[in-house]
Amino acid sequence: MNNSLDISAARHSLAHVMAAAVQRLYGAGVKFGVGPAIENGFYYDMDFDDAGVEIGDDDLAKIEAEMRKIIKEDQKFVCSTKTIAEAEQWAKKAGQPFKLELIEDYKHNGTTSVKAKAKQHDADVETDGDTMTFYTNGDFTDLCRGGHVASTGELKNIGFKLTRIAGAYFRGDETKPMMTRIYGVAFQSQKELDDYLKMQEEAKERDHRKLGKELDLYVTSDLVGAGLPMFTPRGTVLRQEIAAVSCEYRADIGFQAVWTPHMTKPDLYVKSGHWAKFGDQLFRVHSNESGDDFVLKPMNCPHHTRIFASRVRSYRDMPQRYMEVTTDYRDEKSGELGGLSRVRSLTQDDSHDFCRPDQIESEIAGLLNCVQKIYALFGMKLRVRLSYRDDSDHYLGSPELWASAQKQLKDAVIKMGNLEYYEQEGEAAFYGPKIDFMATDALGREHQLATAQLDFVQPERFELEYIDADGKPQRPVMIHCALLGSLERFLSVYIEHTAGKFPVWVAPEQLRIVKVKDDCGVDKMVNELAAAAKAHKVRFTVDDGNGSISKKIRSAVAYKVPYVVVVGDKEAESGQVAVRVRGDLVDSSRDGAVDDKGNTTAKYTPIDLAVAIQREHDSRSKLSTL
Amino acid sequence: MNNSLDISAARHSLAHVMAAAVQRLYGAGVKFGVGPAIENGFYYDMDFDDAGVEIGDDDLAKIEAEMRKIIKEDQKFVCSTKTIAEAEQWAKKAGQPFKLELIEDYKHNGTTSVKAKAKQHDADVETDGDTMTFYTNGDFTDLCRGGHVASTGELKNIGFKLTRIAGAYFRGDETKPMMTRIYGVAFQSQKELDDYLKMQEEAKERDHRKLGKELDLYVTSDLVGAGLPMFTPRGTVLRQEIAAVSCEYRADIGFQAVWTPHMTKPDLYVKSGHWAKFGDQLFRVHSNESGDDFVLKPMNCPHHTRIFASRVRSYRDMPQRYMEVTTDYRDEKSGELGGLSRVRSLTQDDSHDFCRPDQIESEIAGLLNCVQKIYALFGMKLRVRLSYRDDSDHYLGSPELWASAQKQLKDAVIKMGNLEYYEQEGEAAFYGPKIDFMATDALGREHQLATAQLDFVQPERFELEYIDADGKPQRPVMIHCALLGSLERFLSVYIEHTAGKFPVWVAPEQLRIVKVKDDCGVDKMVNELAAAAKAHKVRFTVDDGNGSISKKIRSAVAYKVPYVVVVGDKEAESGQVAVRVRGDLVDSSRDGAVDDKGNTTAKYTPIDLAVAIQREHDSRSKLSTL
Repeated sequence: MNNSLDISAARHSLAHVMAAAVQRLYGAGVKFGVGPAIENGFYYDMDFDDAGVEIGDDDLAKIEAEMRKIIKEDQKFVCSTKTIAEAEQWAKKAGQPFKLELIEDYKHNGTTSVKAKAKQHDADVETDGDTMTFYTNGDFTDLCRGGHVASTGELKNIGFKLTRIAGAYFRGDETKPMMTRIYGVAFQSQKELDDYLKMQEEAKERDHRKLGKELDLYVTSDLVGAGLPMFTPRGTVLRQEIAAVSCEYRADIGFQAVWTPHMTKPDLYVKSGHWAKFGDQLFRVHSNESGDDFVLKPMNCPHHTRIFASRVRSYRDMPQRYMEVTTDYRDEKSGELGGLSRVRSLTQDDSHDFCRPDQIESEIAGLLNCVQKIYALFGMKLRVRLSYRDDSDHYLGSPELWASAQKQLKDAVIKMGNLEYYEQEGEAAFYGPKIDFMATDALGREHQLATAQLDFVQPERFELEYIDADGKPQRPVMIHCALLGSLERFLSVYIEHTAGKFPVWVAPEQLRIVKVKDDCGVDKMVNELAAAAKAHKVRFTVDDGNGSISKKIRSAVAYKVPYVVVVGDKEAESGQVAVRVRGDLVDSSRDGAVDDKGNTTAKYTPIDLAVAIQREHDSRSKLSTL
Repeated sequence: MNNSLDISAARHSLAHVMAAAVQRLYGAGVKFGVGPAIENGFYYDMDFDDAGVEIGDDDLAKIEAEMRKIIKEDQKFVCSTKTIAEAEQWAKKAGQPFKLELIEDYKHNGTTSVKAKAKQHDADVETDGDTMTFYTNGDFTDLCRGGHVASTGELKNIGFKLTRIAGAYFRGDETKPMMTRIYGVAFQSQKELDDYLKMQEEAKERDHRKLGKELDLYVTSDLVGAGLPMFTPRGTVLRQEIAAVSCEYRADIGFQAVWTPHMTKPDLYVKSGHWAKFGDQLFRVHSNESGDDFVLKPMNCPHHTRIFASRVRSYRDMPQRYMEVTTDYRDEKSGELGGLSRVRSLTQDDSHDFCRPDQIESEIAGLLNCVQKIYALFGMKLRVRLSYRDDSDHYLGSPELWASAQKQLKDAVIKMGNLEYYEQEGEAAFYGPKIDFMATDALGREHQLATAQLDFVQPERFELEYIDADGKPQRPVMIHCALLGSLERFLSVYIEHTAGKFPVWVAPEQLRIVKVKDDCGVDKMVNELAAAAKAHKVRFTVDDGNGSISKKIRSAVAYKVPYVVVVGDKEAESGQVAVRVRGDLVDSSRDGAVDDKGNTTAKYTPIDLAVAIQREHDSRSKLSTL
């Protein structure tokens, strides 16, 4: 039964229940703002000043307990209506100034919507005629447009938890009083709640900003500025390995690397049309020397058209496929900058395919294949949205070209056979239809990363041409595509997706050699391991510091190093090492192997180990192959 | 005898001889400016307005012939002195207003030096006392401080040639009249002159701007701006291969790649000290969004210090070696921008080594080794300049550190054994001693490309530290080093050094497969060649256009493609191709090999060919190994 509860109604009802519990616990002095359902839960904004208490995290359990009592009491949600005058009177009598303001607002403007986030879930009052609706459960009455369960008892199987207290301006308006907001999360069952909380805990553990610091991947500096991360040697390995696979896959289908500078005269964007649309969002560059003005490039397509246009292209030369991993600069709001998710310096694995209109399907097919291959490699499930035009007239390019292009996009997706997709009209860019790829990470979160977009406009604006078989100039189509999107944002997702336990081919440090003591034999073995690793291009370090073995192993585990070997007398003597895979010894008994001394732990010579790691790297294996 | 002529005196004498010839040919109406010896030759600035003639390139032969007559006449250079008053009188009488101005200038300022370039070679008048010297040969008299051969006859074995006519402001001052400058080149012998002219011709043929266009390596666009070249797929191969070798060599000695953004808050350079010195030469960046000011980075060291400083470093962690191939932006004078030699976007193969003072020698030794290896690979001879401090007090860092560092630099150079070097005091940067590397190209021109510089100042300004064995903080030394300098400038040199005939590992297109006709068998062979080439990572194209075979081969030769194979019936049948090396068939008879049909032309199966080219690529062979 409870499984069929409208979760949004349940969450909203829980907001009422929480308010009722607070009123019971802290008295009539508490003033109420709004209490909507939100994604995963609910909140209520309240003012405790007149109640003479200050609510802290310790109070949450108390309030939660009171809520459970109210649920047990199975109070009905009873609806009543009041005229505006009656409503005003109620609010005054109840000593609820915030509710009064909502009523006044409705009276004058016909709406009481609150600003910002809460807007879509807000406690809009009922706007039917000149009456307003109120809901009462037990002795708590709230101005509310409704959307509850029938009675609090229905909430008994709902899994919920009050999670945190925050400050929030009334109705999200910073000119209004600061209130106390209590957040709760709520799901259909305790199990779902537990899963959610566990996932949240896991997400916190995996936060790429936390791991970025712990694993020494990137740093920021106040001297350099916000949104301008710098990558350490370890983080740069991630960038390089991941960019390399994007380039390799695209090179396989004929893309050629090009290189363009990071700035340009604004003229380029005036010509492309970006200036009028995005001019304000570009970083402006000024030359004191010449007085010239430039801008930092926020995208690469206009630069790439200059390369296409630098030669006469025959229909036989088409398509021309350019790719570039290059850093673009976007003047993002400083308040929105954080970690690698949103940066001012974003490095795109960008590509531009200049093709004949009849080549769209095959070019898209090649790119789809690349996208599928790369997300399979990263272990992320994909689905795609085909974004089409609608009937409005704000799209550029001929309707025939649109129809043909949309069909070619869809055909290419269908021919993939195994690609989940959905179509959406009106989601195309004004310059052409597109495919957006949604990738699901290990925590089940979806991220829009890769994209492939057709563009009919830039070829027109830049007057791009190829010469057809009859010697006549024809206009090409451009396909913009990025497999990763931006390296920085992709890494923010990928670090969390893997929890920093990168597969060997990505791992900044693939092997750590832990030296137990200074000793001639041990040194020799360490040197042999290091030499073999170097010869086989294994990324390794030697820990020959003073700490204890267990401390050294803990350090390697903290860095999530895939393979660790400890070298002491035994290893020096036998010329073989046992391997720890992220801390645990590799047990060869999983293959049923037991050595002649009855050991089940697999042993490797320096060369065998180096070769095995190199093979794992080169094959970009997702799992340890040792 | 003539071999011992002072070449500068001979060149200056030739300027007089040229002026005398002009006066004979065009009469007394010609007004003379200055006529110095310059590098490789001489010039004279003259005004032909009153002579009523306009001198063109056709006149050069006539003047040259007259000069040879004057040389044959063996006229003595006779010196005379005049007081300033007599000199003025002479100039007025001779109708030489420019000479008069020089005399007036001397009278008032005690100097007659001309501005700009000509300054160091100018016709300064003799400043001894209040008299001025004049030199007469035949009926031509010139105000001149001297430095001639004894008589024109001594010039008879000198190889000289008038090369071109240009406009030049009198004394290089644009407020003064524009004169006609005739340039000549002159060398000890006709042979030397011929060699020089041939070299000039060759340099013109190899001009990287010409080859850049012909070989489709880079493009520029008015929409993007001057000094901001964009690299085509072919040019990007050059960049990538050359950057890769620089990174590979440095990785071999322990350098690790890092990544930093292209801009920063000015604060970083205020801290580093660059702001006060170079603030005006930086591109300024402004954010409309936040109002923040930034600058584009002109170098990478301050960014790299942020990575070093982001963790506590122990003496055991030292050195920390960072490298980055990244683009810096410098606000160069727009008039000086040209081709790839001087650009606004310069991509440095930069590295920063943070080491203990006792590690300087070994670190420098590693870098010296890299520099030697890379220029040996490029086939360019190296010599180095050790630049030391002098006794002045504008150097920062303790004298003991300087003494030790200079000794370590020199010791490292000496230990290389085979490195030509010279030492120069007073050439160090204020922040530390350095090594500049001079590389000689195929035309004998020297270029300063690589550099290794010690820096005692930035570690101080950024308060960088490592913890020594006693747990005490110590200041590291920084070593800046670039093997190539900037990729763009290096390429401008390398394209000319190789004349665009890049070795296979650098060549953008290593193999061109020319298809003779559409035919089932021929297609199959072409596909086999293409598949083999792709499998072995050979950079190839297929020319299946309509042109004739000879036209197709000419096109491949024009692109200087190392290997070309032509596929027709014969090749389809035999499954083997003959290979043209930059146009010429590979003759296996150079190895004495003759096949069973008596052919001396080496033949390759698709796989053999692809494997051979891949091997040549991977070994970075300088010469064709086919």
